[in-house]
Amino acid sequence: MTVGLSIHDLLTPVAVIDETVMETNISVAQEYFDRIGRNFRPHIKTHKIPALASQQVAAGAKGINCQKVSEAEVFADAGFTDILITFNMLGKTRLEQLKALHARVNLQVVADNKVVVDGLADTFSENQPLKVLVECDTGAGRNGVQTPDAALELSQQIDRCAGLTFHGLLTYPKPGSEAAVEAFFSETIKLLDQSGLQCAVVSHAGSPSLYDSDLVSSATEHRAGTYIFNDRSMVRAGMCDFDDCAMHVLATVVSRPTETRAVLDAGSKALTSDLLGFSDHGLIVEYPDASIAGLSEEHAVVDLSKTDRKPEVGERIRIIPNHTCVVSNMFDKLVFHRDGVVTRIEHVAARGQVV
Amino acid sequence: MTVGLSIHDLLTPVAVIDETVMETNISVAQEYFDRIGRNFRPHIKTHKIPALASQQVAAGAKGINCQKVSEAEVFADAGFTDILITFNMLGKTRLEQLKALHARVNLQVVADNKVVVDGLADTFSENQPLKVLVECDTGAGRNGVQTPDAALELSQQIDRCAGLTFHGLLTYPKPGSEAAVEAFFSETIKLLDQSGLQCAVVSHAGSPSLYDSDLVSSATEHRAGTYIFNDRSMVRAGMCDFDDCAMHVLATVVSRPTETRAVLDAGSKALTSDLLGFSDHGLIVEYPDASIAGLSEEHAVVDLSKTDRKPEVGERIRIIPNHTCVVSNMFDKLVFHRDGVVTRIEHVAARGQVV
Repeated sequence: MTVGLSIHDLLTPVAVIDETVMETNISVAQEYFDRIGRNFRPHIKTHKIPALASQQVAAGAKGINCQKVSEAEVFADAGFTDILITFNMLGKTRLEQLKALHARVNLQVVADNKVVVDGLADTFSENQPLKVLVECDTGAGRNGVQTPDAALELSQQIDRCAGLTFHGLLTYPKPGSEAAVEAFFSETIKLLDQSGLQCAVVSHAGSPSLYDSDLVSSATEHRAGTYIFNDRSMVRAGMCDFDDCAMHVLATVVSRPTETRAVLDAGSKALTSDLLGFSDHGLIVEYPDASIAGLSEEHAVVDLSKTDRKPEVGERIRIIPNHTCVVSNMFDKLVFHRDGVVTRIEHVAARGQVV
Repeated sequence: MTVGLSIHDLLTPVAVIDETVMETNISVAQEYFDRIGRNFRPHIKTHKIPALASQQVAAGAKGINCQKVSEAEVFADAGFTDILITFNMLGKTRLEQLKALHARVNLQVVADNKVVVDGLADTFSENQPLKVLVECDTGAGRNGVQTPDAALELSQQIDRCAGLTFHGLLTYPKPGSEAAVEAFFSETIKLLDQSGLQCAVVSHAGSPSLYDSDLVSSATEHRAGTYIFNDRSMVRAGMCDFDDCAMHVLATVVSRPTETRAVLDAGSKALTSDLLGFSDHGLIVEYPDASIAGLSEEHAVVDLSKTDRKPEVGERIRIIPNHTCVVSNMFDKLVFHRDGVVTRIEHVAARGQVV
């Protein structure tokens, strides 16, 4: 993998990123948030590469969003100073790591329960209090307090801790649920207001309904990851076209056992098994009517029964993955190109940082 | 992560391997193949760690099975000399890598089509011919020639190439299809025999019906990976009990948003999204009636509606993954333990080797 090579000469499978498309994706999203007057905080999980976060910040993003302390450490080492970690943190070792990180960057974290707040309160002191956002479950069914009353109660607990600063509210929403998010946020803000607590930040999120973020009028910032590369799920969500997908997994047809079956050299170790509601494992650009029906670790089995043109053994194809974020995590390096010529190779620096 | 630590002190999520269970798994499988008089060639994809392959070879395994040239290079560097690569290889760069590998180890490869054989034939010479097995599709619906006649034809093509040696037959079967495998192999062997071609190797495979391998009487070797750790799919297949599962993913309950929902810190970046036919994402040892209903990259959402006992925030649990092989590929290191005390930490040396 060398700068200046054609991507057609790379060994497959390989994940390649179109620089031009990515640059457009970065600027279109940033322009939207500039236009609606909202801070934008990209989630680095999609690329895990400091150089790309630098492009997002240069375009106007306010800091970054990480999911784990270990990821945040990679980005702090790379010079990022405004970091939000959106994961409940527990345990003495991890909290000590968090404290060390807090000493060197402007850090915000989340909590959705008393045990997490207690752990944070025991770790941080009033000399340098930690900013904590209350995570609200506005319908996605993952983490989060369930009601505005519960959000108020946890906010008050945080506010009572000398080492913590109540900093606001946060949600990871169900896509398309802007009305429910706004109802939850505005009701909670009213309750907080009545009890004398102010939200410095009200953080909404998600790529799948990114351009409806203005419907959540109480939000002060938006977090999103996928939009930088886009993927098949983003096209389905109506957020972009296939031409706006910057990531392709290049694969080679290694077998044509039957008239209606092709086998590719990109399996779950490249594409992952994430279906995201699709019934197959990605879109083959050159054969959109073919279906990646099954994956094993190194093989993709493609059903050709609905496509008249059929690829031959040795032919190279491009796959738009269902979910781009998880693909980045499978590769040590991502290859960038402009018009098919390799421009740079970036180490996926925060790949595999799970703790 | 330090030798001598309790695994209960490790940051989660983390994949841990019980040395005692693994040792038993290695010896039980090897004893079976010794008893039926068949060579056993473990597939390294499950662990990707040379030290573990050394344990398998020390127990009596005949060489190793890799899926990609890049994996084989890692194991050749670690001193392994008998390597079978079970993937069609194409393209000048890859074939040159294969040739370099062939110069230093006893190598076998596969082919299931003429294009692959042509590429191999153009690369290797009669000075040091390459052994090629014909891959047969005996019902799994992935790679492989479709009929004994097609197997004969490809075998004859290989035999005509000066740089190649026809070395035998190979299949990756559908689990439980021993009768179909034996029918395909024995018919092909008959045809080959009539045309004067001998099979040095007839290679059968798979962990899910490992202990029925004796039913494929024409096979000379068996390849399997999963058996070394075992997993939930192997228990379902009747090949082992849960106590025989050497790998656990340790996770922590980070949230209990509702009475019936827990959230763990092990998502698809630890467990992967491989369902393998299950409707949920692994078995929680301490809460077998709970269901890991959904995964995002860093979260597992657990449905507690069918379990009376419910875990608390901060509690650590053990997960037996659906599919152990893909979990190893998500971690840079695997932690080994005996009775919960860390014995060693192994770098997953061939992790992410996709080409």
